[in-house]
Amino acid sequence: MMDLNSVVEKVLEKSDTRLETIYLVACGGSLVDMYTSDYFINTEAKELVAGLYTANEFNHVVPKKLNENSLVIICSHGGNTPESVEAANVARRHNAQSIGLTYNEESMLFETVDHKILYEWGEDTSVENNPMAIILNIVVEILHRQEGYAHYEAFKQGMHQIDDIVKNAQDQIQERTDQFADTYGKEEMFYILGSGASYGHAYGFSICSLMEMQWLHASAIHSGEYFHGPFEATDHSTPYILLMSEGPSRPLDERVLKFFKTYAKKYEVVDAKELGLSIIDENVSDYFNPILFYSVLSVYRYKLSIVRNHPLDTRRYMGKVEY
Amino acid sequence: MMDLNSVVEKVLEKSDTRLETIYLVACGGSLVDMYTSDYFINTEAKELVAGLYTANEFNHVVPKKLNENSLVIICSHGGNTPESVEAANVARRHNAQSIGLTYNEESMLFETVDHKILYEWGEDTSVENNPMAIILNIVVEILHRQEGYAHYEAFKQGMHQIDDIVKNAQDQIQERTDQFADTYGKEEMFYILGSGASYGHAYGFSICSLMEMQWLHASAIHSGEYFHGPFEATDHSTPYILLMSEGPSRPLDERVLKFFKTYAKKYEVVDAKELGLSIIDENVSDYFNPILFYSVLSVYRYKLSIVRNHPLDTRRYMGKVEY
Repeated sequence: MMDLNSVVEKVLEKSDTRLETIYLVACGGSLVDMYTSDYFINTEAKELVAGLYTANEFNHVVPKKLNENSLVIICSHGGNTPESVEAANVARRHNAQSIGLTYNEESMLFETVDHKILYEWGEDTSVENNPMAIILNIVVEILHRQEGYAHYEAFKQGMHQIDDIVKNAQDQIQERTDQFADTYGKEEMFYILGSGASYGHAYGFSICSLMEMQWLHASAIHSGEYFHGPFEATDHSTPYILLMSEGPSRPLDERVLKFFKTYAKKYEVVDAKELGLSIIDENVSDYFNPILFYSVLSVYRYKLSIVRNHPLDTRRYMGKVEY
Repeated sequence: MMDLNSVVEKVLEKSDTRLETIYLVACGGSLVDMYTSDYFINTEAKELVAGLYTANEFNHVVPKKLNENSLVIICSHGGNTPESVEAANVARRHNAQSIGLTYNEESMLFETVDHKILYEWGEDTSVENNPMAIILNIVVEILHRQEGYAHYEAFKQGMHQIDDIVKNAQDQIQERTDQFADTYGKEEMFYILGSGASYGHAYGFSICSLMEMQWLHASAIHSGEYFHGPFEATDHSTPYILLMSEGPSRPLDERVLKFFKTYAKKYEVVDAKELGLSIIDENVSDYFNPILFYSVLSVYRYKLSIVRNHPLDTRRYMGKVEY
């Protein structure tokens, strides 16, 4: 694990006065990994502001607040996504600092950003070394140093606890993910619901795991929005996956579950509380839900891929045709 | 049309120093109407910040920036959505000002907010009196008075032009919406794509028009995100509706269209440029796309409802069962 604190120190030293805006810019799965950090800053900060952008929109519609008091954090797994690399150029042209995260040391992203973070990737990696946790650690550190974060110690403690929680949860769900794959292996479309810091993973499971990796149809719905339109499409034949968070937005997810019990039939509940997240301090637990959900949902998608005989790395367009 | 300027004056007078944050809080279709305003402020403002929240998340996870320098704009069509009414209480408890918009003068929302805006509703209403345009007018006015908005005059001019553009576009699309309904009337799921100020309406058409009003399945995808996962689900049998915006994010939509021409077969293009939006100044045109798209997509959904023999106001849960 690289020393994130030294990166944060360099960023804050270079910033003349204070950081005012943190832009989180990426595409697809890397953007999903940033949702929690955007949500954290916009929930907890008294002054600092965050903005979450798909890279090509950031490049074409540059926000007027992007300036020398901005930090642009850019993540690209392979490090050569053209829109993400261009975002680093946009940052530079506006005198903003940039941090680039990738697992490819030879990437174009690393040639363009001010500060580089190379992350590890693979089965044995501690979740703290995943880009989602790295970016969250960075923004928490910046917030704490700049304006103070009351639950900083609880957050650090949570980062020490999350690895074991994830490992236990992955053991715990082996049987039920087998059942899920058996039951839903022939479905063609899923809705994924979630709230709070985890809505990003409802979206992420939809676009990355189901659409990209399984060529299935999918739609992410915020648990709070479900009752204001989307629930009219609910019936006994439509499959749902409900991410039930631990933390302040849990009542939104619970309300969906209550409705499902009467009006839906095909629904899978992935409950962070049941999976052990409650041992983390309640003031910070919400920010760890997505880390848990990502690891747990990875097992769901793997089991689904086996039953469907559709390997997770099969692509028909990405990296194969021009676009 | 009520005098919005006097509401804006009252808000700015009451605010001790300057407004720092505008929170746009609603549910479902009313939240969709606010997307453009959130996007406008976060694109154009040098200091002012906007945040877009589904009401129940705002209430349960109150942002720490909500204070006496905040304005909370709340919209509820019927004015009695419990989460939206509660958002006005949350605003008050944090000493923030609130503006409530509804078409129901006797609503609970009006009993709770500081400033009231009653809007008209119906076929003959000028689009400028729709909540989407009213809220956009408010935030543009606030931005201009507080920090100056370089394209303020062009924006005002656009508001004078949009009504005729919409009326012409609605005439122009009668035949093609008939064709659309005939061609796609038996489909069960649609993807809606868009970018820039109009992504909110890709989402809105998905959750309100298709899911709520037609009990169809739907998923909104940002044109910029399409190539980073979602496009792997594209084939010749999946239907898409692509909102092509006029303005800086248009290249993102054009890239999708180019891909569709090779790899998709069932796609409907709703092109703001072709529908006459280009007469509006290019510095502000993007903010008028959603007003045009809403009115045009309303024709699409009406035609679909006729072919499907499913009236737009049919509900099975909303207002009929407890939830």
